Amino acid sequence: MATEWIYGRQVARLALAAGARRRAVRLAATAPALRALATDLPAGLETITVEAATLDRLTGSRDHQGVALEVPPFPYVEVETLLAGDLLVVLDEVSDPHNLGAVARSALAVGSAGLVVPRYRAAHVTPAAVKASAGALEHLAVAQVPNVARFLQQAKRAGLWVYGASAECATRYTDLDLRDRVVIVLGAEGHGLRPLVARACDALAAVPMQPPVRSLNVSVAAALFLFEAVRQRGADETGDPGSARAGRRADRGGRAGS
Amino acid sequence: MATEWIYGRQVARLALAAGARRRAVRLAATAPALRALATDLPAGLETITVEAATLDRLTGSRDHQGVALEVPPFPYVEVETLLAGDLLVVLDEVSDPHNLGAVARSALAVGSAGLVVPRYRAAHVTPAAVKASAGALEHLAVAQVPNVARFLQQAKRAGLWVYGASAECATRYTDLDLRDRVVIVLGAEGHGLRPLVARACDALAAVPMQPPVRSLNVSVAAALFLFEAVRQRGADETGDPGSARAGRRADRGGRAGS
Repeated sequence: MATEWIYGRQVARLALAAGARRRAVRLAATAPALRALATDLPAGLETITVEAATLDRLTGSRDHQGVALEVPPFPYVEVETLLAGDLLVVLDEVSDPHNLGAVARSALAVGSAGLVVPRYRAAHVTPAAVKASAGALEHLAVAQVPNVARFLQQAKRAGLWVYGASAECATRYTDLDLRDRVVIVLGAEGHGLRPLVARACDALAAVPMQPPVRSLNVSVAAALFLFEAVRQRGADETGDPGSARAGRRADRGGRAGS
Repeated sequence: MATEWIYGRQVARLALAAGARRRAVRLAATAPALRALATDLPAGLETITVEAATLDRLTGSRDHQGVALEVPPFPYVEVETLLAGDLLVVLDEVSDPHNLGAVARSALAVGSAGLVVPRYRAAHVTPAAVKASAGALEHLAVAQVPNVARFLQQAKRAGLWVYGASAECATRYTDLDLRDRVVIVLGAEGHGLRPLVARACDALAAVPMQPPVRSLNVSVAAALFLFEAVRQRGADETGDPGSARAGRRADRGGRAGS
C-alpha cells in the first residue's frame, strides 16, 4: 500500500487524536519535536528520531516543524454517507490545496458533516492541504464526486437546501435561512460558480463588500457562511431573537424523492 | 528614496486604482500580463516589458503572475487619524505577513477605518503581505504603534469599545454589540492575546468551535468579527430584528477623556 507523509505539529496532534480517519504507521521527528509531542503519542506507534533535513526530504516541504507521520492514502468517503448530515460544504473547482485545507478547518470547527470536491480539476487532500487545515482534514469526512451539479441534485432529493456563494447577487448570506439542513457551495476564487453549478442551487447569496474589494478568499467566504449557520441555529435554540425570521420555510422533506 | 516592488495582478489593479495610498513609479510586466492589464494602466506610468525571470529576481518571489510595480515605502498613517473611525482592527504580535494581508483584505471589504499593528515583533506591510491582501493593503490605512495596550487605552478615551478575540471564554462574538464604534483585537494564532492586551479590552469573546478544533486561522477569526459587525449594523438600519438586543448600551462618549 502506498503511504504518504503528513507533517506539522498541529497535524500530528490531530492525526494521533481519537477519531482520526486514518491510522499512522510511523512517526519521524527531530529530538526536540519528539519531546514536545511526547504526551500525545499513542502506545505502540513506531517512532524514529531524524534530522530536520531528512524531514525536508520525506515531506518535500520545510513547513514540517520537526515532525512527520507516515499514513495510508487519504480515506475519501462515499457521498451517500454525507447526505444524512445537516451542514455540508461543496468546493467547486478550488485548485489551491491551501484553500481546501483552510475551508476544511472551518468546516470541522462548525461540526460540518463533511466536504465534497470534484474528482477532477480540483485540489485533492494532499499533505500540503492537511497542513493548511491544521490537521482538520484528518477528522473531516471528504467525498470526491465526478459531477458537482449532479451531486447537488442528489442532495436536494435527500432533503437538503443548496445555497451557492456568488459575488454578483443582491441577496446577502445573512438573509438565507441556514437553520434547515443545508449545503453551502463555493467556487474558485475570481471565477465563482460554474453556470451549471449555480443553476443547481436553490438560491445564491453574496457576502457584502465595499469597493475596491471585489472578492474574498474562498476560505473566508466559507467561514462566513458556516458560522452564520451556527449563529442562526444557536439563536434558534436559545430563543434569542438574533435569527428570528418571518416564519420557517416549508420543509424540504416534501421534495424528497422528486 | 528607497523603493520596493509589489507584485501580482490583483495587487497591480488595486495599486493603480483611484484611492491607492502610494503612487507607483514604474511597472514591469511580461508581454502577456501587460496586455491583460492594458485598460487599468494610468497614462504616464513608466512601463517596461520584461521576462518572468527578471520579475522573479526583482520581487524575490514566483507569485508575481507576470507583473510588478515599483513603489515608494509603505505610507503608514498616524494612529490619531484612525481614532475617528467606527471599526478598527488591531493585530497583536501577528508575525506572518500572509495573515496580516488576509486580515487587511477583510478589513477593507467591510470598510474598516484601518488596521493597527505593533511596530516590533509583528509582521510589517511587506510586498508578500500586500500580495496576500490581494492589493487591499494599498488602500487600507495602517498604523504602527510602540505599545498595543497603550493604544487600546487611547482608543477607549476616543470613545471606542475594545473587544478582544479569545478562544477561552464563554461569551460568543455574536453576543457582542458591535453596532457602536468598536476596535477588534486579535492575537497571534496559538498564543492569543498577551495578558496586558487582554486586560485592556472592555470584553473578550470567542468564536464557538467544536472539538478537536481548538483554534481558527487569525484571518478567519478577524473576518467573523468584522462581518458580524456589518450584519448587526445592517440589520439595525433596515429594522430587521436580526440583531435586536436588549437595549443599546450607554454611549461610550461618557467615558471620553477618562
